[in-house]
Amino acid sequence: MKKAKVAVLGATGMVGQQYLKLLQNHPMFTVSTITGDKSVGKRYGDAVNWIVSENIPSEFADMEVQPTKPSRVDADLVFSPLPSEVAGSAEEEFAKSGFPVMSDASAHRMEPDVPLLIAEVNLGHLSVIEEQKRSRKWDGFIVTSPNCTTVGLALVLKPLADKFGLNHVIVNTMQALSGAGFPGVPALAIHDNVIPYIENEEEKVETEVSKILGSQNKKMIAPSELAISASCHRVATLDGHFESIYLTTEKDTVITSVTEALRTFSSIPQQMKLPTAPTQPIIVRDEVDRPQPRLDRYAGSVPGMSVVVGRIRHGLDSKSLKFGIMVHNTIRGAAGGTILIAEYIVEKGMV
Amino acid sequence: MKKAKVAVLGATGMVGQQYLKLLQNHPMFTVSTITGDKSVGKRYGDAVNWIVSENIPSEFADMEVQPTKPSRVDADLVFSPLPSEVAGSAEEEFAKSGFPVMSDASAHRMEPDVPLLIAEVNLGHLSVIEEQKRSRKWDGFIVTSPNCTTVGLALVLKPLADKFGLNHVIVNTMQALSGAGFPGVPALAIHDNVIPYIENEEEKVETEVSKILGSQNKKMIAPSELAISASCHRVATLDGHFESIYLTTEKDTVITSVTEALRTFSSIPQQMKLPTAPTQPIIVRDEVDRPQPRLDRYAGSVPGMSVVVGRIRHGLDSKSLKFGIMVHNTIRGAAGGTILIAEYIVEKGMV
Amino acid sequence: MKKAKVAVLGATGMVGQQYLKLLQNHPMFTVSTITGDKSVGKRYGDAVNWIVSENIPSEFADMEVQPTKPSRVDADLVFSPLPSEVAGSAEEEFAKSGFPVMSDASAHRMEPDVPLLIAEVNLGHLSVIEEQKRSRKWDGFIVTSPNCTTVGLALVLKPLADKFGLNHVIVNTMQALSGAGFPGVPALAIHDNVIPYIENEEEKVETEVSKILGSQNKKMIAPSELAISASCHRVATLDGHFESIYLTTEKDTVITSVTEALRTFSSIPQQMKLPTAPTQPIIVRDEVDRPQPRLDRYAGSVPGMSVVVGRIRHGLDSKSLKFGIMVHNTIRGAAGGTILIAEYIVEKGMV
Amino acid sequence: MKKAKVAVLGATGMVGQQYLKLLQNHPMFTVSTITGDKSVGKRYGDAVNWIVSENIPSEFADMEVQPTKPSRVDADLVFSPLPSEVAGSAEEEFAKSGFPVMSDASAHRMEPDVPLLIAEVNLGHLSVIEEQKRSRKWDGFIVTSPNCTTVGLALVLKPLADKFGLNHVIVNTMQALSGAGFPGVPALAIHDNVIPYIENEEEKVETEVSKILGSQNKKMIAPSELAISASCHRVATLDGHFESIYLTTEKDTVITSVTEALRTFSSIPQQMKLPTAPTQPIIVRDEVDRPQPRLDRYAGSVPGMSVVVGRIRHGLDSKSLKFGIMVHNTIRGAAGGTILIAEYIVEKGMV
Repeated sequence: MKKAKVAVLGATGMVGQQYLKLLQNHPMFTVSTITGDKSVGKRYGDAVNWIVSENIPSEFADMEVQPTKPSRVDADLVFSPLPSEVAGSAEEEFAKSGFPVMSDASAHRMEPDVPLLIAEVNLGHLSVIEEQKRSRKWDGFIVTSPNCTTVGLALVLKPLADKFGLNHVIVNTMQALSGAGFPGVPALAIHDNVIPYIENEEEKVETEVSKILGSQNKKMIAPSELAISASCHRVATLDGHFESIYLTTEKDTVITSVTEALRTFSSIPQQMKLPTAPTQPIIVRDEVDRPQPRLDRYAGSVPGMSVVVGRIRHGLDSKSLKFGIMVHNTIRGAAGGTILIAEYIVEKGMV
Repeated sequence: MKKAKVAVLGATGMVGQQYLKLLQNHPMFTVSTITGDKSVGKRYGDAVNWIVSENIPSEFADMEVQPTKPSRVDADLVFSPLPSEVAGSAEEEFAKSGFPVMSDASAHRMEPDVPLLIAEVNLGHLSVIEEQKRSRKWDGFIVTSPNCTTVGLALVLKPLADKFGLNHVIVNTMQALSGAGFPGVPALAIHDNVIPYIENEEEKVETEVSKILGSQNKKMIAPSELAISASCHRVATLDGHFESIYLTTEKDTVITSVTEALRTFSSIPQQMKLPTAPTQPIIVRDEVDRPQPRLDRYAGSVPGMSVVVGRIRHGLDSKSLKFGIMVHNTIRGAAGGTILIAEYIVEKGMV
Repeated sequence: MKKAKVAVLGATGMVGQQYLKLLQNHPMFTVSTITGDKSVGKRYGDAVNWIVSENIPSEFADMEVQPTKPSRVDADLVFSPLPSEVAGSAEEEFAKSGFPVMSDASAHRMEPDVPLLIAEVNLGHLSVIEEQKRSRKWDGFIVTSPNCTTVGLALVLKPLADKFGLNHVIVNTMQALSGAGFPGVPALAIHDNVIPYIENEEEKVETEVSKILGSQNKKMIAPSELAISASCHRVATLDGHFESIYLTTEKDTVITSVTEALRTFSSIPQQMKLPTAPTQPIIVRDEVDRPQPRLDRYAGSVPGMSVVVGRIRHGLDSKSLKFGIMVHNTIRGAAGGTILIAEYIVEKGMV
Repeated sequence: MKKAKVAVLGATGMVGQQYLKLLQNHPMFTVSTITGDKSVGKRYGDAVNWIVSENIPSEFADMEVQPTKPSRVDADLVFSPLPSEVAGSAEEEFAKSGFPVMSDASAHRMEPDVPLLIAEVNLGHLSVIEEQKRSRKWDGFIVTSPNCTTVGLALVLKPLADKFGLNHVIVNTMQALSGAGFPGVPALAIHDNVIPYIENEEEKVETEVSKILGSQNKKMIAPSELAISASCHRVATLDGHFESIYLTTEKDTVITSVTEALRTFSSIPQQMKLPTAPTQPIIVRDEVDRPQPRLDRYAGSVPGMSVVVGRIRHGLDSKSLKFGIMVHNTIRGAAGGTILIAEYIVEKGMV
């Protein structure tokens, strides 16, 4: 099979680097263009402050950084880990010019004709794309991926909602440094500390999960009724957001069934054996003290793509549950999650 | 006024060290005896691995470590930061021998005739002491202090329960290293990590808060009906437990009244101007990103004795609240909190 | 005695904050003006991201930030913790306008007619000030303080040079985060890491120590012959630079005499009992594992003003020594060290 | 080729775990026995507190832990990461019983008839084995691996000694937490801190490097004359010892030749293409701020087996050099380095 050509916009940033790391030797994609802002015209290897691994993959080091403009990009599909403040208009420009745009930015996430996807949860929302193209008069289209914290939460809520019904969810997060990008959080601010605030994060989690678990028709996506309350905290870990979840269910539950529902959850990407789909989207650990970010961040058959769950127990009654989850924020929660969606889209011939 | 003579049992441990640091130049107390286990007979300065500050206060360095036996202790009152496994029987022995025992251990906390106190919250529970002495045939008595996490939580719930009525509380903690004592948590376990489990901690928080907020008669203390669900996590901070609280109230609330209720909370220790009583037991900060353990752990007029609260906002509706609190776990949550109770007891002539 | 009016230039920065913290209730100085750049016209409390302690001292919170211009400053003496790139010309402007300028910046440090001072080491270098004023046609003058790493090193070398003669010095540093200012080092860069490079730091240490230990005549300061080789590293500590020193002496040494020479070192600030002068400029600890930044950073009679030394032992022969030192980089190594010099200058009537 | 059967003694410890991780799917070895102490009789998966990766390799989880006794071990060769206090006699017992013993313990390292090996540096020292067996009347033999800090240092000194001649070496280390095993360093001790002392470490480095660079005859190994002075520090990194080296050479050097000598260094394991031999034993990086433990700990063609060097520059004159190195302490500095030696021994038919 001929590989699809993909571009990575804003490739010098932290998530941009993660994209390149994951797209190295990808069986379906080949990186044809990388774009930047201040680094345009430079060799990528000279422009980037590479921090996600020891060395820049050699196939990218010598590529020239292009401006983030449709006319300068040669690709079948565009990944956009652009910063929020520029993503909005840039992504529209690319979609208008005919590119399928896979966005990690928040700019278009909450628009009713833009799918906000987790590959195992709501691929059906792609049905609004035709309407998106039609009403916006675009040749291409925009598909968005959720905030990193949302991804772990919504993925775990999906099988529980299906099986037990959910009333409301209270989530407390302990989020990793890489979630803030680079340079991001100053060491002087977070060392020996917890910072109980991440700008706009709680709002994103609360609204995005509802949309993802919502229903769609041909024209738009309608959010679910699920009530979510989030409290977000930054802690001094490198990668891997930990989330402590308390939720109430419509039906009584027994813990073994809950564990079973999570552990056996599987969806379209697994059936299609997409390259970035982990065998188990959700891994449940039995130890009392797991998941832990450092030990579990690369869990699963595709490192960093499985959400790890542990300490499943009842809350105040048998219609409430509490447990901890851990999601690799820059892999499943960003570049990896979006690449998985792109694999589906390409495989389905939507590109 | 003549100072009361106090003994510190198990004085080489971490909380023992914190006691000595706080009892330096105390206006009401003078340390007459310090006890230990393996270090008996040694000079305290040689026996202890002093880690709570630069130097051992010189007045203690030359004291000889005594065995933890009533016959070897010359004191009006005894502080017991003994490890749980030995505290139970040792404290009973001291109480039997006529000593008022102020315990930080969990051994006797949940017994119905033993007060579990926070000085600003439930000094009334001291009424069971006569019954405790009578039924146990003790000349002395035991008064206990709660688990460090409980202290911060119950202190903050008190004014809210009084003013708005509480239905249930969901608390998520991010607890400091010093809560586990020394050596405690291995660096290899917690570095770049979150550990979502602290043995027995959740059970302690859930039962202790209910007892503290309960009612008493002359004979025993009856727990309150308040339902509490705790999830406890260890993070890499030195001191200061952070707790994220979600609770439901009986009445609708407005945030300004909640803030007011917390900020103006004051109680008997403040009225009596006890030396270790902070002017404000609860400090409310208005910044969006406070409290933070490193910045706020020594907050207040008596460093480490005030609980700091921030980000007060509604949860899912106007009968729910969420906010973060920070309590210095070895000061207000252990040695300092217990010293404050002892000041009351001595001032009231109960010793 | 009437207090001298002092201004703090660039008062919103990290060292600027440390100045204000130390100048609170200072017996000789009162802060009359604080200046800034982007924050001009704002209330200081609103302009600053205060990170050096829980709260901004209330006497400064309501002051209005002034532009860094001589005409807007009302002061007998000016402290300049300005960033290097603007310090050079700004400080000259102030000196020209008649202000005595106490600078922490590197701009003028190595000029032969500008004293580079440590209060206990080389106050004699102030003799070049007359020539500085004359030749530069200034009414005021500039006195500089060394780089934070230099301060600890030179202070400890002084008594050793005097007593044993020094040939060469090899120093390896493990420097704290606050040395890079705020935001400074990204957490993502230093977490779980050592960074073996600090821009320009090694050059500063090597040249500044020589100048400080050099000799002066009325016209200029001549560097000493002492050869110094520095390797500087950043580690994840908040405050307190640790330095591992290896040096060769002209004479054979015995360890007890070396310890004695360091421990008994005392100088003019101690004799004059200046308010910021610690009783012991150098504290020697006997434990095998000290000094440690976290335990020793506030050592001494004036917290943070003593350099702590430990593990004094021979190197390859009896004409070589090795030991570790710890200096609080933003107190003795910046604001505190400079305030001590200012106290001398004011006390001597040079202002 | 039939795989050699190997035993791992003390397999529940930290280095024991690293052995098993590296011996998974090893092309020359198959693990036939694992031994322990308190865990004897248990399933390995139940006995171990596995901390070196997400999961215990499944082929080991179900093995039964055997006592550390020759009669209970079925193997062609024995790896001994035993704790020092028991290693001495246990290893002798195994050698006496005919086993080739590959030891990571310090017990026998400095005995003149016991090789202390780094595979790329001094395999020639194996010539004393015959004498060792003869004089000790053993059917087996003991070969030792150096301390983790020594490994990195001696490996880098070897090509420099050969090409430029070395006079003396001053090394300052910043060592990782895993070097102290588990539980090892308490988080409360090292958090926000540097500990300038590691028991016996400096002595080991100073004597071991001399022996490794020494010469041998058929009967014994004679240490080299090279004088080494070490200062060892613990910092808060997980893996990867950083070492700052200052050395004097017999000849003048130019930096490009030094770089060349290190970068092109290659030895017997590379020629023999042993499975654990990295293509480049020494990797030189050109960036000003490398090596860094977090970025470089898994450098090279066999992750963790290459020592990374950077910032090569002159010291006080052209006969002195300074640079930083980073060695993965539990891979190249322990399990990996010893496995590489074992590969040589087996390949050469010495087993």
